[in-house]
Amino acid sequence: MPPRTPIPLIKVDVKKAPWEQNPKPHNRWHPDIPPVAEAKAGDLFRVETIDWTGGQIKDDDSAEDVKHVDLSRCHHLSGPIRIVDGQGIPAQPGDLLAVELCNLGPLPGDEWGYTGTFDRDNGGGFLTDHFPEATKAIWYFDGIYASSRHIPGVRFAGLIHPGLIGTAPSHELLKIWNDRERALVEGGEGSTTLGGVLHTRPLALLPEPKGALLGGVPTDTPAWARVSGEAARTIPGRENGGNCDIKNLSRGCKVYFPVFVEGANLSMGDMHFSQGDGEVSFCGAIEMSGFLELKCEIIRGGMEQYLTPMGPTKLHVHPIFEIGPLEPRYSDWLVFEGISVDETGRQHYLDASVAYKRAVLNAIDYLAKFGYTKQQVYLLLSCCPCEGRISGIVDVPNAVATLAIPVAIFDQDVRPKPGGPPVGPRLLRRGDVAKATYEGSKPLTINACMCGGGH
Amino acid sequence: MPPRTPIPLIKVDVKKAPWEQNPKPHNRWHPDIPPVAEAKAGDLFRVETIDWTGGQIKDDDSAEDVKHVDLSRCHHLSGPIRIVDGQGIPAQPGDLLAVELCNLGPLPGDEWGYTGTFDRDNGGGFLTDHFPEATKAIWYFDGIYASSRHIPGVRFAGLIHPGLIGTAPSHELLKIWNDRERALVEGGEGSTTLGGVLHTRPLALLPEPKGALLGGVPTDTPAWARVSGEAARTIPGRENGGNCDIKNLSRGCKVYFPVFVEGANLSMGDMHFSQGDGEVSFCGAIEMSGFLELKCEIIRGGMEQYLTPMGPTKLHVHPIFEIGPLEPRYSDWLVFEGISVDETGRQHYLDASVAYKRAVLNAIDYLAKFGYTKQQVYLLLSCCPCEGRISGIVDVPNAVATLAIPVAIFDQDVRPKPGGPPVGPRLLRRGDVAKATYEGSKPLTINACMCGGGH
Amino acid sequence: MPPRTPIPLIKVDVKKAPWEQNPKPHNRWHPDIPPVAEAKAGDLFRVETIDWTGGQIKDDDSAEDVKHVDLSRCHHLSGPIRIVDGQGIPAQPGDLLAVELCNLGPLPGDEWGYTGTFDRDNGGGFLTDHFPEATKAIWYFDGIYASSRHIPGVRFAGLIHPGLIGTAPSHELLKIWNDRERALVEGGEGSTTLGGVLHTRPLALLPEPKGALLGGVPTDTPAWARVSGEAARTIPGRENGGNCDIKNLSRGCKVYFPVFVEGANLSMGDMHFSQGDGEVSFCGAIEMSGFLELKCEIIRGGMEQYLTPMGPTKLHVHPIFEIGPLEPRYSDWLVFEGISVDETGRQHYLDASVAYKRAVLNAIDYLAKFGYTKQQVYLLLSCCPCEGRISGIVDVPNAVATLAIPVAIFDQDVRPKPGGPPVGPRLLRRGDVAKATYEGSKPLTINACMCGGGH
Amino acid sequence: MPPRTPIPLIKVDVKKAPWEQNPKPHNRWHPDIPPVAEAKAGDLFRVETIDWTGGQIKDDDSAEDVKHVDLSRCHHLSGPIRIVDGQGIPAQPGDLLAVELCNLGPLPGDEWGYTGTFDRDNGGGFLTDHFPEATKAIWYFDGIYASSRHIPGVRFAGLIHPGLIGTAPSHELLKIWNDRERALVEGGEGSTTLGGVLHTRPLALLPEPKGALLGGVPTDTPAWARVSGEAARTIPGRENGGNCDIKNLSRGCKVYFPVFVEGANLSMGDMHFSQGDGEVSFCGAIEMSGFLELKCEIIRGGMEQYLTPMGPTKLHVHPIFEIGPLEPRYSDWLVFEGISVDETGRQHYLDASVAYKRAVLNAIDYLAKFGYTKQQVYLLLSCCPCEGRISGIVDVPNAVATLAIPVAIFDQDVRPKPGGPPVGPRLLRRGDVAKATYEGSKPLTINACMCGGGH
Repeated sequence: MPPRTPIPLIKVDVKKAPWEQNPKPHNRWHPDIPPVAEAKAGDLFRVETIDWTGGQIKDDDSAEDVKHVDLSRCHHLSGPIRIVDGQGIPAQPGDLLAVELCNLGPLPGDEWGYTGTFDRDNGGGFLTDHFPEATKAIWYFDGIYASSRHIPGVRFAGLIHPGLIGTAPSHELLKIWNDRERALVEGGEGSTTLGGVLHTRPLALLPEPKGALLGGVPTDTPAWARVSGEAARTIPGRENGGNCDIKNLSRGCKVYFPVFVEGANLSMGDMHFSQGDGEVSFCGAIEMSGFLELKCEIIRGGMEQYLTPMGPTKLHVHPIFEIGPLEPRYSDWLVFEGISVDETGRQHYLDASVAYKRAVLNAIDYLAKFGYTKQQVYLLLSCCPCEGRISGIVDVPNAVATLAIPVAIFDQDVRPKPGGPPVGPRLLRRGDVAKATYEGSKPLTINACMCGGGH
Repeated sequence: MPPRTPIPLIKVDVKKAPWEQNPKPHNRWHPDIPPVAEAKAGDLFRVETIDWTGGQIKDDDSAEDVKHVDLSRCHHLSGPIRIVDGQGIPAQPGDLLAVELCNLGPLPGDEWGYTGTFDRDNGGGFLTDHFPEATKAIWYFDGIYASSRHIPGVRFAGLIHPGLIGTAPSHELLKIWNDRERALVEGGEGSTTLGGVLHTRPLALLPEPKGALLGGVPTDTPAWARVSGEAARTIPGRENGGNCDIKNLSRGCKVYFPVFVEGANLSMGDMHFSQGDGEVSFCGAIEMSGFLELKCEIIRGGMEQYLTPMGPTKLHVHPIFEIGPLEPRYSDWLVFEGISVDETGRQHYLDASVAYKRAVLNAIDYLAKFGYTKQQVYLLLSCCPCEGRISGIVDVPNAVATLAIPVAIFDQDVRPKPGGPPVGPRLLRRGDVAKATYEGSKPLTINACMCGGGH
Repeated sequence: MPPRTPIPLIKVDVKKAPWEQNPKPHNRWHPDIPPVAEAKAGDLFRVETIDWTGGQIKDDDSAEDVKHVDLSRCHHLSGPIRIVDGQGIPAQPGDLLAVELCNLGPLPGDEWGYTGTFDRDNGGGFLTDHFPEATKAIWYFDGIYASSRHIPGVRFAGLIHPGLIGTAPSHELLKIWNDRERALVEGGEGSTTLGGVLHTRPLALLPEPKGALLGGVPTDTPAWARVSGEAARTIPGRENGGNCDIKNLSRGCKVYFPVFVEGANLSMGDMHFSQGDGEVSFCGAIEMSGFLELKCEIIRGGMEQYLTPMGPTKLHVHPIFEIGPLEPRYSDWLVFEGISVDETGRQHYLDASVAYKRAVLNAIDYLAKFGYTKQQVYLLLSCCPCEGRISGIVDVPNAVATLAIPVAIFDQDVRPKPGGPPVGPRLLRRGDVAKATYEGSKPLTINACMCGGGH
Repeated sequence: MPPRTPIPLIKVDVKKAPWEQNPKPHNRWHPDIPPVAEAKAGDLFRVETIDWTGGQIKDDDSAEDVKHVDLSRCHHLSGPIRIVDGQGIPAQPGDLLAVELCNLGPLPGDEWGYTGTFDRDNGGGFLTDHFPEATKAIWYFDGIYASSRHIPGVRFAGLIHPGLIGTAPSHELLKIWNDRERALVEGGEGSTTLGGVLHTRPLALLPEPKGALLGGVPTDTPAWARVSGEAARTIPGRENGGNCDIKNLSRGCKVYFPVFVEGANLSMGDMHFSQGDGEVSFCGAIEMSGFLELKCEIIRGGMEQYLTPMGPTKLHVHPIFEIGPLEPRYSDWLVFEGISVDETGRQHYLDASVAYKRAVLNAIDYLAKFGYTKQQVYLLLSCCPCEGRISGIVDVPNAVATLAIPVAIFDQDVRPKPGGPPVGPRLLRRGDVAKATYEGSKPLTINACMCGGGH
């Protein structure tokens, strides 16, 4: 008979710094970061994680901590966990690791989170050319619901999920990552791999020893120097899963990860209480510490059986996700559209990213008519359960992207009506997010016609 | 007391050619195409439409009609309809036209549809570099359900919607469209407005008198020559709505369109029995003739009150959509992911279109393991109620896109399991779509590791 | 290749009387009523039906037609339809007949319906001791939505379904029905088969030649006299399905009926645009004429394989229903509770009917605080998509029943709030249903504390 | 700024007996049971509860503990909690207490539950005349999912809820309860308040000092003697809420309770991991210990504003429930029907309880064809998220009740198919529940035609 209570595998203490945790987290991907724990297929085990910045962001009313955040230290992952089968034989490269997310939640005693936008010169966000300053909103949780003193008038049920979960890359896969990302950076401006209009931020984050936490790799050793110089940053999602930021990856879901190294070496972190599709503000979900209760199953040989490589090597694969029945159900949605024409009126070719930017900008301006500041809406659309869709991707030259927002999360009716949105005394102003001035010199994207509140 | 039965406003006869219909449809956008009917705000009225190709595609087992389709003649729209208020005063530029889609369906006696991919040299599709040949699948409808003799083993409930609905552009807006699309074509290869990897197809379709149908504009007149030389093609979605291809725009939904010309001049067509997000195969929904029962409401001044221009003029706006409670509800979804690394392994920068291409390719190869050909899955993902999401758009350098497929549409369990997908006698081959050989000379995108069925 | 358009099997003309229809409908259950049409397993066929009263109720503002309705003539069923397999062999007693409801709707040109309560002395309703007068509300349909000039302020999407559908009984089954219903009537007051408190209405409706319509049985013959004297009334649901009034039996559902006679002899009618669980007002759904598009499948021997008789003979079985994914989804519900204590305060033992009566009475009084009359709410709860649940049936002595109402159907927020419901100018009175005075002498159930509007 | 973590108000220790807890629980309703804690409106506070039997049922494979359970000691409630507003003024009789259930769960370290049927002579269940023996199934929880070694082959997401929550009655209300329940018992057989067929169990449980736990009432005092002799048993739901067993009363829901005594004196317990409508087996949910995190709001005067008394005094009211968006969504349901004809074939008059009994019996026999024993199905239908509906309550003489079961909870397809249910080697036997022989002498209800497994 299996134990009926989750096996406590990895614990954290949110009062301590990341490097003081036991076991130590890691914030880079590398096959040589050793496992800190082992779990058997079929066991239900519990993993705690600190928030992705490792405690840099505080529950207060200033955005200075967001502005000066040290991103070289993010994300802080719990693991790696070595997965073995009932006979103790570890997962092997070529297997598929089925991970069921049985329960997820904030850490008892630490039931809060934050959403922010980074300063344009320190991370930025999807709309950083419009909103260059750091901002912050703090959220408290009433069970399934989140609400914020910085964005009054909204409340929604969270779909708690790990922003980041994945298996360790092999040396070969790691080299592929580093090579292609370095080529992008070296290609620079004018590269055909750039759509152009989103190029307001760093192209990629290459390996960087500064700020690296490597779990059990002994510090001040040649091994540490080597691994820290090679290890991939955790920001992008890649073949191993990683920072895939899939907002519906919540309680009851299952992920099928490719296994690249013996034992699979599963790591996770960056818990989100809720997130919108796209996580547009970058520090964009409701970020929190949290726990996961998981079960693993090893599908022997499943990587070859189920995943077709889509690229030059057999490592160019992606995980598969299975989403279950326990989502909030909303009956009414307001949907904003964008096409691949940018804010200057220039036509782009089937560029879904440009189209989605337009859809988000449209939604921000629309909702700002109801008493919110644009910064409040920007953060809200990053963390509420809104859906970002690729609606049309073939009708040259325009991609069509849509952003659907459940109307029930607002305490007022935000649908269009004869008579227009509330004005005068009917318009309720609703506080604001914390802000920190942008002191850099990059130009804003000014929309000649944008004249609402907030800027 | 209003009449209790929808007012029959525009009828079609599917046995006749487009130019034989009365009133004549139009297949270009231009402010000088005169209204063919008038409807009063609050009235429930009925509009019939022919299918988008105007009867070029037949219910048979050959894809030759798809291969040689004349796209210069598409789409065939019913309208324009002039909208007036209760006092007979027409909608004015600057108003918002709220259009409620009360009921939608196939035409009685014509309950079938088709899905196809165009030949790479005549329209192509999202994956035309992988699948250059024309293909076709025919669907029959059992009430809410669609099934196809060309793709046995799947069946799903349709979300019937108009692929194309919109108001007429003003002269000023039309000029903006033509200018920006011409600039794209003239920019050509290497333009920063191209993400590059999707550039396998025409950049844009500029005004083209050949094939133009202009409704009530008298043929063989200077007016016809001028309008046909200026009128915008209907392929892309734009500020007036148009070919927005939003799959959830079904029974009970409401769209808020900007009004650019007196009377609004609402047109619609391209009815879909069902579509997947992105409509990836281009001829991609279940295309059909059909009817719409609509109600309009004029929100005076609503364009300025509710829509913020997002571009250099006050015409750079988008419609807003409101989606209602009557959708199929599926409990379980299988989700495929793509990141912005292309099939050659090259890294692209936050390119959601590339990421979505990867997600779709992943899903095709996965499902092909269950007995379908890749061409069957490609068509299926274009027309079944799958969801295409922009999951991550900020984690440099990778955009993450996902494609979620409801598992209940298959008559077998397509989830990963120990033991792998069905093999040997357990694997049921399931016919195939109609195909027409590609005779052009453009190179295929070959995935070194793609070795499944179908190519 | 099957025809792609539903086969028109039975048509009606709503301008004609029931007995003028061709083929003639029937309003009794009897094995000797001959089939009027035949359908093959797998075919999609279309059946039209007149409304259940056969046109007795008019679209006007008087309830006199409801008050004086002739119930001996109800319901008017289309059929029987003989079902054969691909080889022409009819369904046999002991088979299971799977009937898929592919599409359902009002008849084009007749898009309206009615809801009413009967006069206490001519049919009554669930709450007839509280509301003895005949009332009526007329509904018009905007596609999926229904709204009424008699109950302004509400609008909801319909779940169109046949109130009545079933197979013909065999002679043996018919005798069982007649025997047990006659025993009930003969037992009369004080019978242990009565819960008592609901005994405000006729106990059962025994065979009655007056008003009988027997389809193809030739009138003025000994056969007619015999059949009309034996044939079961259509009011109650029984082993053959019949008037089961399951509100979710809508588009895409499947019913598995037992077959009692050769050919199954399937009949149907009493189309509802929408109904609440329980159909409490008796004339209680949105009653209309309509059409069904169906497919049948014969499961040979399935009655024995799948249905366990629950009673003294092997005919004591029930159909099974399968409900599909296309329902309205509502996110928020207000739930009213009732326990098995009646309005006089008397305790009943685990009586779910009493408990449900309490729940409905509670909901009526609650909603009447928001400007509706009690009669409006009574009709609304009978026809809107509310859910009636048996929540607790074991906690002696109280059964607990609940009535859940989707809040989105109202154009105001009807949830409890500090400050109480709207009063003074905030309270909007909202017209009323048509009423016809009760002229009988039966006593009202007076609730000492009931003091709201409407009585 | 409110604290961001729930205030721990009442704790339990599941290793201790009920009477060893601090504070002591109570298992009777009485206004003189003093509050053990106080909570302020708006505060989020946490209450732990022991399971309803107070630890009498064990995680093992014998049903002897269920057979000999001491029901005089049930349910064990945590509270009463005195509710005050922001100024410290307590809730007053006539107010409405809005209680939001923000989070609910099993107690960490105690993640298991049980379902059972009681012995016919010690509690019984809805079908005790068919299944007189005590049975038990143990459930373990994988996060949101429950599965049982005693009922293999099923797994479902729980809708965790308190089976019992309510405010304290006033002396006047308590007297009403005791009077009407005593009258029922005294009326006995033949009373018109009995439907008859369900009378297989005790009529009511009158006040009983044996087994009473009265919280802070000092034992061995005249007060204890008086209160224990008057205090109402907790089994039935009543005007104060209490054992309402509403299965959807889960995370995010809100209940509006009438306030009968100063401070409201809110109590709760009997946590369920999941329950089916009706909780038919009586020990019928997945019973567990657990926690609730709640918020209260006082609506001053709201009882009069919102609740209409439905009976002779103004205390004859019911709570109102508001259900939120976070439910499992299932796409397909199999629905079993029952009419008010009992197992002997006797006709009852509009008796929804009889009809529901039939529907449950039908479902049990049907599912037993797929390899389960009838006892397994009986327990399953009591605790899985099935829906019990009153479908028709007006069509004399038959009430129609339905039981809808989501097909996704089974690991096989349980829908009817040509060829019949699995037989021979295809039929997988699936263990059984724990059973304890019935040694009493009451007669079974034998269904002549019931011949499946299990009895």
